[in-house]
Order: sequence, then structure tokens, then C-alpha cells
Amino acid sequence: MQLELLVLLGCSELVFIFTSLRCADDAMGALPPISLARYVCVVQKAYQDTDSVISSVTTKVKGFAKTNSSDLGLRVWDTADYIIPPQEENSFFVLTNMIVTPNQMQTRCPELPNPSTTCTSDSDCKEGFSDARGNGIQTGKCVDYSDAVKTCEVFAWCPLEKDTDLPEPAMLTDAETFTVLIKNNIRFPKFHFSKRNILPDVTSSYLKSCTFHRITDPHCPIFQLKDIVSEADEDFQDLAIRGGVIGILINWDCDLDLSHKKCIPKYSFSRLDNKNPENSAAPGFNFRFAKYFSVDGVETRTLVKAYGIRFDVIVFGKAGKFNLVPTVVNVGAALSFLSLVNAVSDWVLLTFTSKRHFYSQQKSTYLDEMDDTSEVERKTYGTQ
Amino acid sequence: MQLELLVLLGCSELVFIFTSLRCADDAMGALPPISLARYVCVVQKAYQDTDSVISSVTTKVKGFAKTNSSDLGLRVWDTADYIIPPQEENSFFVLTNMIVTPNQMQTRCPELPNPSTTCTSDSDCKEGFSDARGNGIQTGKCVDYSDAVKTCEVFAWCPLEKDTDLPEPAMLTDAETFTVLIKNNIRFPKFHFSKRNILPDVTSSYLKSCTFHRITDPHCPIFQLKDIVSEADEDFQDLAIRGGVIGILINWDCDLDLSHKKCIPKYSFSRLDNKNPENSAAPGFNFRFAKYFSVDGVETRTLVKAYGIRFDVIVFGKAGKFNLVPTVVNVGAALSFLSLVNAVSDWVLLTFTSKRHFYSQQKSTYLDEMDDTSEVERKTYGTQ
Amino acid sequence: MQLELLVLLGCSELVFIFTSLRCADDAMGALPPISLARYVCVVQKAYQDTDSVISSVTTKVKGFAKTNSSDLGLRVWDTADYIIPPQEENSFFVLTNMIVTPNQMQTRCPELPNPSTTCTSDSDCKEGFSDARGNGIQTGKCVDYSDAVKTCEVFAWCPLEKDTDLPEPAMLTDAETFTVLIKNNIRFPKFHFSKRNILPDVTSSYLKSCTFHRITDPHCPIFQLKDIVSEADEDFQDLAIRGGVIGILINWDCDLDLSHKKCIPKYSFSRLDNKNPENSAAPGFNFRFAKYFSVDGVETRTLVKAYGIRFDVIVFGKAGKFNLVPTVVNVGAALSFLSLVNAVSDWVLLTFTSKRHFYSQQKSTYLDEMDDTSEVERKTYGTQ
Repeated sequence: MQLELLVLLGCSELVFIFTSLRCADDAMGALPPISLARYVCVVQKAYQDTDSVISSVTTKVKGFAKTNSSDLGLRVWDTADYIIPPQEENSFFVLTNMIVTPNQMQTRCPELPNPSTTCTSDSDCKEGFSDARGNGIQTGKCVDYSDAVKTCEVFAWCPLEKDTDLPEPAMLTDAETFTVLIKNNIRFPKFHFSKRNILPDVTSSYLKSCTFHRITDPHCPIFQLKDIVSEADEDFQDLAIRGGVIGILINWDCDLDLSHKKCIPKYSFSRLDNKNPENSAAPGFNFRFAKYFSVDGVETRTLVKAYGIRFDVIVFGKAGKFNLVPTVVNVGAALSFLSLVNAVSDWVLLTFTSKRHFYSQQKSTYLDEMDDTSEVERKTYGTQ
Repeated sequence: MQLELLVLLGCSELVFIFTSLRCADDAMGALPPISLARYVCVVQKAYQDTDSVISSVTTKVKGFAKTNSSDLGLRVWDTADYIIPPQEENSFFVLTNMIVTPNQMQTRCPELPNPSTTCTSDSDCKEGFSDARGNGIQTGKCVDYSDAVKTCEVFAWCPLEKDTDLPEPAMLTDAETFTVLIKNNIRFPKFHFSKRNILPDVTSSYLKSCTFHRITDPHCPIFQLKDIVSEADEDFQDLAIRGGVIGILINWDCDLDLSHKKCIPKYSFSRLDNKNPENSAAPGFNFRFAKYFSVDGVETRTLVKAYGIRFDVIVFGKAGKFNLVPTVVNVGAALSFLSLVNAVSDWVLLTFTSKRHFYSQQKSTYLDEMDDTSEVERKTYGTQ
Repeated sequence: MQLELLVLLGCSELVFIFTSLRCADDAMGALPPISLARYVCVVQKAYQDTDSVISSVTTKVKGFAKTNSSDLGLRVWDTADYIIPPQEENSFFVLTNMIVTPNQMQTRCPELPNPSTTCTSDSDCKEGFSDARGNGIQTGKCVDYSDAVKTCEVFAWCPLEKDTDLPEPAMLTDAETFTVLIKNNIRFPKFHFSKRNILPDVTSSYLKSCTFHRITDPHCPIFQLKDIVSEADEDFQDLAIRGGVIGILINWDCDLDLSHKKCIPKYSFSRLDNKNPENSAAPGFNFRFAKYFSVDGVETRTLVKAYGIRFDVIVFGKAGKFNLVPTVVNVGAALSFLSLVNAVSDWVLLTFTSKRHFYSQQKSTYLDEMDDTSEVERKTYGTQ
């Protein structure tokens, strides 16, 4: 294209100008002017128009885990059990640990003991009172929580959840072997360009057996959860106990002036919540959900406090493509910026040099209105 | 850094030039040139490169509500009951009101009465017909809906939901006392900068007791739902009846040239759906879900039309940091823009002044090819 | 505003300069300079400051479907049945096809047959072994899968799902008649501007009966699913079998210098996953979920492999409004870019023309320090 030629011309002129203007060196310090030009034209691609990415993500987790606890016995967990909710837009949650409180009903039971709920007699409890940080409505009675402790009775989902004994190690230790297939389709609407992270030269047979590896399989869209977590500098079994949020960052940085084949996603992984903050407010990641059923006509539920890892798939990036406007703006502005150099040179010449009077004389033009045919003229330079 | 010095130099030169160019005043009107320079350099920070935010949000709602209705009796609602679905990426829904239709089964029942479903005899109903706006497949029979009204019988989830009697006030009036802890981690990938909304100087003990307040506790990440709604200029109890969507906007506007301590989030709240639109299509916010179970081997469900408040956590903002390219572009371009001033001045001088011929003569140079040693020369000024 | 006048002045000057500079024609090739100026000022609106959109989306799907299969008999499906999960932020999933595996329990059953699981005797199976691509933990026994095939027995959710017989046509063929109401509120925070896709002049009665049609009803926010899919160049019944992801793109491109009435959303639709990729890894869109219940105290579940269409509502766009900084930058830089033209002209004149010596003589100035009153002077032109 002739336009691109023009840009090239503009860029090389810039390089030329920067190279020949020695006096700019002082002002620019460590960065030689030639680098500045290279920086504007080559590194920052200031001749390109850009567009941000529009993305669609689907994920599919595979694998199963076995647990063998005293409560539940031997049990196998599959996708339908450990992915909650079953489908999200840019995110998936893998259950790794949990506290299960089965057979809760709306009835009365002793409140969990803490300074404001322990009591010695009914007079310590107030009927109808409900503490925002408690679990239910006080009935006004003081009852045995254990042999040693008495607490106020509450009307609530009983029995209350005791979330102090978190299983360690995590229950679904096998979760580290799960794999997730991430399908990411992107588009740059301004350039009518779309692509997906499963590259065209990837074959079906490869997809059936591959696992992402930064060096050997950088384009395989199937990731082992353990690898993701360890790339984020975390230990899976450690993270699995209290849960956390891991970002799967997909960066599409595409120079559409080059071959479209070179527009490929780069994956990176990092923990998004704080691991060991000094001011830990509910560290890790967990939430509660319940399964409801009916026992002899009475509504009953199994409450689950689910700990696990939420993987957020964050797609970002931009595409650049040659466009006249940013070219004109950036090359033009860089040229204009050079006029500052003249101003600085002039100031130096006119202020510090021994021959400053001679320069000054040459630099200024005095128009003599009375004698407008005067042959004696002086020219203007510099920031003219 | 020497580069920043250069910028400062460029910016002050700009200010100087603007100040000394008096003729620009007319064109710029109310805005003096010095303000323009200040505007480019100081207000708009045109010497900075910018990056947009990448964000991760987790939320945790606490609190419980009690209801005492004739249908359900006394009942306590906790997180697992009122947060639906239990976990979302940037959003959470709090149930505040509902219409429950228990024990629906796939069977036959009279359709809800409306002009197209009321009938007087079987001949008004058409077997197998299903109206897209109806609830099921007509069986061809005309049956009693009530003592007064007959409607066509349909095969559907029966009994049908009657969603005309929405409880007022809302069922979960206590929802206004719920609190939500919002954990927001952000990063600006270009600058390798990350931060979270729980600031480093916030202590654990403070987090245990604080509630966000715009003036007294502007950095507490725990919000009472009532406060959020009232900051959005809505009445919680009013909103709770039909539901709505409230935006929790977190704005990270960071100047990374300054201390990173000054990069702090600003919270604001606003209602995102329309309150009282003239053309209200389904005002408020509600959706339906069902709990399925089996009664004597027959699939049965409890249908819930859930009204409530969806809180969307919207994180936006950008970071700016000194960068050579935008500096060159913006300062350079601003300087170049000033050449317009010359053009305008020339035009005025050459068109309206009494001495325009004199100026014109001085401004133009005629090369006489025949006499190239001619001493008589004229110079070019202006937009040269 | 006087500022806008200035821009107009700058822009028309640009047009004037471009028009008068004939020599630029060669370098610019097909694009005449006047077009470049028009392009910068009119097409690209380079005098505007821009802001990106902040959006909130709610969706409500209406309609019901009937199925009549040998397993389930006649059955009616409504919103609560086919929207999973019941509520998402910018997305909704409509179930169109499924493989149901009822009454699964944690027990023993023969593994599905494949090269690694078929066996002839117990010695082919290894107790406690679990293949990541299998469904459970081997018990060490080799049992009859069918009359002809023996496979290793596993402990798993039994009976295992057989996902090879996908119903064709899809089960919920009626899904194409469903309609969805999309409510989209947007804001441009920088300009304190907000709007929604239900335009102010749309009446309630219109909303009750309208359906989006690109030509006759371009502003109706109610879309029939079949229309959406066919606008994305897909066949609904075809897509319904294996599922897929369809993007509902809402583009807000607003020139806030014009009347706000002209800021209206543009809808477009496209398939976001790949239809028939050569390297199809799990084509279509599906996920598994389970409904849990208790049969005689034993935990039982119904496993559903849900195929369907996920509709992602993607809101994008930007608003532009007059602002001094981009005006100064873009007009100024474009002016400066024109100085390149001088450089090129000079180079041509001084290199290729027959009179290059004459020009060179006129173009260069030699300062003679010894004789600084010299009447013989030469001037500098061009890139001075």
C-alpha cells in the first residue's frame, strides 16, 4: 500500500532527524534520540489504530474424585457434584473442601457459644431477640449446649452448622488431577477479525491427548488444575483447604498488519485473592448452599459450606492495524515536538555562547517601515 | 528521571508560549491560553500512558431474616436460602419477596382467565392448541376456574401460579439489615501493579466491626444493604416489593506517578433499572426457579417467583503513568496547533491592516531565475 | 460555544491547506489530501473525547415447550425448567436437548466399554485403580456389560450415563418460539449520560405485542429465539441438537454532540463458538447437572447432560463529545505532519531537478563571521 510507504517514509525521516540533531542528546539523557524514534515507530506501533477484544468463553471440567470419610463412607464425585453452579459465563468453581450439616429443620436448638450467647438462666435470654451476627431468634430459654456450656435457645435451621472443624487435608484432594478445556472465541469488531484459542493447525487427535505445558504444549487448550495453580505460585493442596480465586488470563495482543497466524493467545495464571493478608477478612473462598427436601412433610435441607477454587477466565488484549489517523497524529506530533529542540538550541546559543551578539543580530529581523526597499535584511531562525 | 524533566520543560514552554501569544486570546474566547496549557499538562495528564483495570470480585452476604406468614408459619431465612444462585462472578441476588406455588405436577387444570381463555362450552377450546402466552396445552375441555368463570382446561404444571397477589410489604423486610463484604482485587497489567479494596492499613479488628459510611468509614469494605440502596436514592422497603437492579460502582482512578498509597477505590451506588418508566415492561426484577422432588413416584416441584435486588459490582477506572509517547504526541501536537495562530495572525495582517501591502511585500519571496545573484530578496514568514 | 468554532476553524484550515498543497498528491496516492482532512475531522471525529460504556443487562425468557417421549410421557416445560441457572448477569442458557440418567446411586456397575476397560477375567482389572478418563474406581472384578461384552466393574454413580444416543431432532423443538425481553441500561460515566434500550417513545402497549424485526421493529426489545439464531446464520433446529453459544451484540455508538435521541442501540447476532471446526473438541455446548434426592435414606440423583443454547449479551460501544485536548492533539498533529511534505518537496527539488544548483544556492545560508555586515545572504526554506 502507498499509505504504508508514506508511514515508513515518515518514520525514517524521524529517525534521520533524531540522529542528526545532536543537541537533543543532552535533554534526553540516557535515551538517545534514535531510540525515541524507534520507540514511537517500532515499539509502540504508534501508526496503528487499535480495538479491544470481545470474548466468549466456555469451559468444561473433567475428572472425578473419591473420598472416604467416616460420615459419608466411600464416595465418588463427578462434574455434576463438584461444579457449582453447573454453568457460568467466564468462571467455574471447583469444590475442594466442605462442611456438611445434614437434616436441618426449622426448629429450636441451642445457639453456638460465644460471649453474648452463653447464659446461666432463662433471664439471660430475651424472647424474640435476634442478633444480626447470630443464627436465629431467641426463644427466651437457656439450654445445655454441651455438658459444660449453656447457651440461649434459638429458633433457626437446626442443628446449627459448626464451621470450626474444617477438614485438613481437603476432602477432594484428587481435584488437582481434574482437567479443564477452555474454549475462547474472540473478535475485534472494528477490524472484522475473529479467532479462537483452538488454533487451526491443532488436530483433533492432538486435542484428545494433550495437556497445556508452557514449553512443550503452549497451544493446548486443556489445562490440568494442578498446573494452573502451581503456575500461579500456589500449592494446590494448601489452596484446596480454604479455597481461593485463581485468574486464568488470556492475552490476545495482535498486530493485524502481520500474518493472522501470528495472532495467538498467551496464557498466564495468578492468584487473585490475597493469600496471607495481615488483615484477613474471611480468607480463602467459600459460600453456602443448601439442598432442600421433604421428610414426612417437613421441609428439610442439607446445608453445605463449600470451599473451593474459583477460576476466573479473564480475556484481554487489543489488536492494532495500520490507520492513517494515528499515523498522522503520532508522527506529526513527534516532528512538532522536535521544534522544542530548536528553542532550546536557540536559547543556549543566544545566552551562553561568546558570539551571542552575532547570533542575535542574525536571528532578528527589523522592518524599517520608512525604508521598505532597504537591502539590509536579517533572517529569522529557530522557533519561527 | 531525566525524561520527566523533559516533559516538565515541554509543559512549561507550552505555558510560556501560550502566555506570550496574546493574539490567541481572541480565538480561544473565555478560556485563556494559559488555562489550555494547564488543561493539557495538569488536568488531562496528557503526558501519561494509561491502562484499564482487570478486576476480580468476591462477595459474602451475612444476616438472617424472619418471616411469619399464614402459609409458612414462623420461618428463619439464612444466606443459603436467600442468595440465588449461591455464587456469581460480579453480582449477587438477594431474595426479598416471592410468590410460592407448592406441589405443582404435570396434570390438568383450568387456565388462568383472560379474554382468550375464558369459555362457555368445550367448543370454545381446541384440543392440542397451545398459546405462546398461555401456560399449557389445551385439552379441549371448558372447566370451572371459579364459581363465576369458566376457562379452557390445559395440561401443564398444575396448579398454575397466580402471580397477581404480590405480598406487600415484602416478605423479607429484614433484608435491609444484611451486610455484604466485597473483596475486590484489581491489576493494571501494563504497569505490573495490583491492589485490593481492603487497604493495607486496615486491621482485622476494624474489619470485624466496621460498616461502610461515606464520611466516617469510607474504606470499610462491609456494606449494609439498606445503606447501599439509600445511597442510590431508593427506599429499601419500596424496592424490596418488586425488586430491582442496584449497581455498586467501584472506581479505581490511579496516578501511578504519585505514591501508590493514593491509589484508592471510590464507591458509588445507583439504581440500574428504571424505577417508574412510562413504558414499564415488567418493572422491577424477578425470575422463576423450582425445587423438584418426588411425591409417591410422581415428579413434583415447588415453583418460586423470586423478587429481589440484584447487586451488580461494576469495577472500572484506569491508571496513568508517565510515558514518552503520549508526552511527545500531546505536547508536540499542542505546539503545532499554535501554528494556526500564525496563520490567523498573517491573515489578519495581510487582509485588514492599512499597511497590508508593506507586509505582503516583506512576506513573499520572488526568485528571479535570470538574475540569481540578485541582492534583492524577500523573506517568507508565517505558515512557512 | 467558541471552542467548537475554533475546531471548525482548525478543520477548515486543514481542508484548505490540504487542497492547496498539490505536491502532496503524489505521496498520498489514491487518497486525495482533501479526503485525509475530511477523514480526520469528520469520519474519525478526532476532536472528541471518548468514554466506554458501563452496562447492566437483565433478561426474561417467556414461552413453554411440550415434549412427548417414551421415557417421560407428555410433559410441559416452562421457564423454571429450561433456564439453567435461573439467573445470570449477562447471559442466559436455554435447554434444548438432554440425556437424562435417572436414579443414580453410589454403587457398583460395569464400566462403559472401551479398549482400556474391556476384560476377559478379573485379572484384567485392578482393585482401587481409577482412570482419569473413566467414571469410577475399579473393584477388581470383570463383569458382563452386555451379552457380548465384559468390562471391569467400577464403584461410581450407577448406572453410568450413556451419552451416545443424543435425541434427534432435539427434545425441546418448541424452544424456537420462546421470546426474550432484554433490558439494557447503559451509562457513560465521564459524560454523566445514561440511557436504556427501551427508548422513551416506546409505549407499554407496543411492548406488549411487539417482536424485534430488523426492518419493521428495530427498537422492540423482545426477541424471538428463532429470529436471533437465524440472524446469526444458523438453523435453530440444527443448533438445538448439540447446542452452541450465540452472541447478542448491542452496540451503543453515541455522538453526544448531537441530539441524545440519536443515541440508539444497534443489535447484531452471531454464533460465538465454532460450528464445524476441523479440529472439533466437544462441538456444541453442554454441561451436566444433577438433582439430588433421597430414596429410602439412600442418596440418589438424576443426572442431566444438558444441551442448549447459551445466549451471551455483549454490550459495547463508546460515546464521543467535543473536548479541547483531542482537538488540539489531532488537528495540531495533522498540521505538523504536513511539514513532511516540505521535506519531500525539497528533496525532490534539490536532487532531481535540472536547476538543483540554483535552488541549493537559494536554500542555504552561509554566515561569514569575519564579515557580519555582508549584504549577500541566502535563506533557508523547507524543514527549517
